[in-house]
Amino acid sequence: MRIAVINETSAADKNKDIVAALEGRGHDIINAGMKKTGAQPELTYIHTGLLAAMLLNLKRVDLVVGGCGTGQGFLNSVMQYPGVCCGLIQNPLDAWLFGQINGGNCISLALNFGYGWAGDINLKFIFDRLFSLEQFGLGYPPHRQESQQQSIRMLNEVSKATHRDFAEISAVLADPVIKPVLSYPGVAELLDIDAVKDSRIKKSLLSRK
Amino acid sequence: MRIAVINETSAADKNKDIVAALEGRGHDIINAGMKKTGAQPELTYIHTGLLAAMLLNLKRVDLVVGGCGTGQGFLNSVMQYPGVCCGLIQNPLDAWLFGQINGGNCISLALNFGYGWAGDINLKFIFDRLFSLEQFGLGYPPHRQESQQQSIRMLNEVSKATHRDFAEISAVLADPVIKPVLSYPGVAELLDIDAVKDSRIKKSLLSRK
Amino acid sequence: MRIAVINETSAADKNKDIVAALEGRGHDIINAGMKKTGAQPELTYIHTGLLAAMLLNLKRVDLVVGGCGTGQGFLNSVMQYPGVCCGLIQNPLDAWLFGQINGGNCISLALNFGYGWAGDINLKFIFDRLFSLEQFGLGYPPHRQESQQQSIRMLNEVSKATHRDFAEISAVLADPVIKPVLSYPGVAELLDIDAVKDSRIKKSLLSRK
Amino acid sequence: MRIAVINETSAADKNKDIVAALEGRGHDIINAGMKKTGAQPELTYIHTGLLAAMLLNLKRVDLVVGGCGTGQGFLNSVMQYPGVCCGLIQNPLDAWLFGQINGGNCISLALNFGYGWAGDINLKFIFDRLFSLEQFGLGYPPHRQESQQQSIRMLNEVSKATHRDFAEISAVLADPVIKPVLSYPGVAELLDIDAVKDSRIKKSLLSRK
Repeated sequence: MRIAVINETSAADKNKDIVAALEGRGHDIINAGMKKTGAQPELTYIHTGLLAAMLLNLKRVDLVVGGCGTGQGFLNSVMQYPGVCCGLIQNPLDAWLFGQINGGNCISLALNFGYGWAGDINLKFIFDRLFSLEQFGLGYPPHRQESQQQSIRMLNEVSKATHRDFAEISAVLADPVIKPVLSYPGVAELLDIDAVKDSRIKKSLLSRK
Repeated sequence: MRIAVINETSAADKNKDIVAALEGRGHDIINAGMKKTGAQPELTYIHTGLLAAMLLNLKRVDLVVGGCGTGQGFLNSVMQYPGVCCGLIQNPLDAWLFGQINGGNCISLALNFGYGWAGDINLKFIFDRLFSLEQFGLGYPPHRQESQQQSIRMLNEVSKATHRDFAEISAVLADPVIKPVLSYPGVAELLDIDAVKDSRIKKSLLSRK
Repeated sequence: MRIAVINETSAADKNKDIVAALEGRGHDIINAGMKKTGAQPELTYIHTGLLAAMLLNLKRVDLVVGGCGTGQGFLNSVMQYPGVCCGLIQNPLDAWLFGQINGGNCISLALNFGYGWAGDINLKFIFDRLFSLEQFGLGYPPHRQESQQQSIRMLNEVSKATHRDFAEISAVLADPVIKPVLSYPGVAELLDIDAVKDSRIKKSLLSRK
Repeated sequence: MRIAVINETSAADKNKDIVAALEGRGHDIINAGMKKTGAQPELTYIHTGLLAAMLLNLKRVDLVVGGCGTGQGFLNSVMQYPGVCCGLIQNPLDAWLFGQINGGNCISLALNFGYGWAGDINLKFIFDRLFSLEQFGLGYPPHRQESQQQSIRMLNEVSKATHRDFAEISAVLADPVIKPVLSYPGVAELLDIDAVKDSRIKKSLLSRK
């Protein structure tokens, strides 16, 4: 799996813990956001939410691991975009249930709130459970599986119905939202806009550089 | 404050606990969703998310208290819509931090996961903290307040940029998503479509009845 | 390892979840307490604490898994006796840290409080972590290991200094505390008093039957 | 109420948060342990557990607020002594349930594990709930009250039956356990051994100075 780790500024000091917890699992890890709290250029959850959504919508990654101080800000930011299903994950059982029931493509971590001794080990335990699932979105408990799988499919349809498409979104986002993302070190290479197949999205993104 | 409580089927048996925990605070409580797990007609989180978003976007309520088994489903459902900021709330400190930092208009409760002895009392404690805030969205900790308040404003702008407007959304949502909501007992009175001032939304909603 | 599972009445309906979570690990599981809430004869945490302490002090088992509604009652009960180190364990990280830092011989589970959906799976995750430790009581974090290992040794010494020995305790405990334990189905076989080598303890226990 | 705050070394930097969270409630707060991690002389949970037990058994305080990195070490240490009922408290509902069900005289806080953003505010919320109880040890839920109150009374009796009395304990504890406590700055004044009425305890403590 191709996984992007994307940290905003307030909890960027925990970035190394996330990367360490993801390593050695055979996944391709892309450390796309901040690595140190307060470093320049700075990304808030407004920016990391957009970057996460871009990487998912352009199919540059399969899963995004983001977060912020409490996890709620990044969650609300990334959920503004189409094609995202994000869980707030604080412990191994959260991870297991979210993977099992919701089968999403994004997780938001609480990286300051509740993050003390062995917070790094908790991250390892979280990813152990998330990646131990045989199938994402199978459902739980068993008697609710069919209904839950149907809900996942409906949620995908709703997401398309309620959002503008990514070409439109890329065109209308305000400069202070999109410019810091497109100019962030490494993002151009990661997005690889020239290789974007959808000509409308490509044109739209190129116009914002 | 006008508050809607909206339960989906899997955790509807906890509806009475939520209502009890909200009572006696001087708020106007509207119990708009299911009251009993498995009752007919049944609403899933797909439906309660839409109902919540409708009530918020039509300004019928100021706050929605929703949830589901883990809280993640309702959260992902209601976040598909514009003008919603939703927190996953499991304990009093979550509530306080979400109100303080994110200042949202919707909370999603975990109503089966982690809900055991004194789950009802935990809800009381959660609302005690949420409603004790002098100001929603003030920010925390102090040195992050200005940045966080700016993020709230930007999130509002992003929400408008990325979503279709509510008239369009009401027009394009699939029947299995919108029909069960519009026909749910009590919803017509609550939405009061005839009184909707925005003529496009009004027309759109009337066309789906 | 030889492990006793000991439930008191208020959470005895979770007994089957504990046993299931412990199975298949190569340990010898002894289900010594209640199996059903409210069944007769009934054991409270006063009794399960004593039974746990007896099994540990007579070296009939290596580890006791107990608990009650919140876990605090059993914890306080079993900790009245010498030779017991008990952790209150609610999630996998608790288990890991307790095993790593305290290296105890007893855990107390919260079996009604916070016990909802997937509570049984949480138990599996807890035991996965507890039994994955290479060494109990190694210490964490690394720079605190030596100090923590010394504390464990001192705690053992304190336990001997502050408690009466088990022969005296067995002699002086009030009837309503010890009689329901000694007469509980299966306990006589498990304690196997005739085989107790310490003649004072043997004599003391025989006098209470 | 007279409350002692007693910190050991690993989490002593949180001492100021505890004291701040207890202030302004009309209680008499005695800050008896360490104030800074790693300061000299250093107390481990072995020492703070004994100090807590001494203050409770000599009736110098009504309640002890202690803790350590995870809370489990202090808990196991203080529980070695007679007359102590201690809860591991991590959130407001823990505090409420422990006060309501167990009605103890000591609480152990997790001060490194899970202690991140707003950890200080969590402490305030914890004490708000603990001190809002009309009566300690009333029981919860209602149908379990009588049984739980009886368990509290039996636990007191068990504690006397299983422990040596405090005079004996004071006499036999190893030097590395008791000496650092008796010589810790402020402890002599607090214990006020000359004023101890029980002549055996007085004599025993004087012999260890």
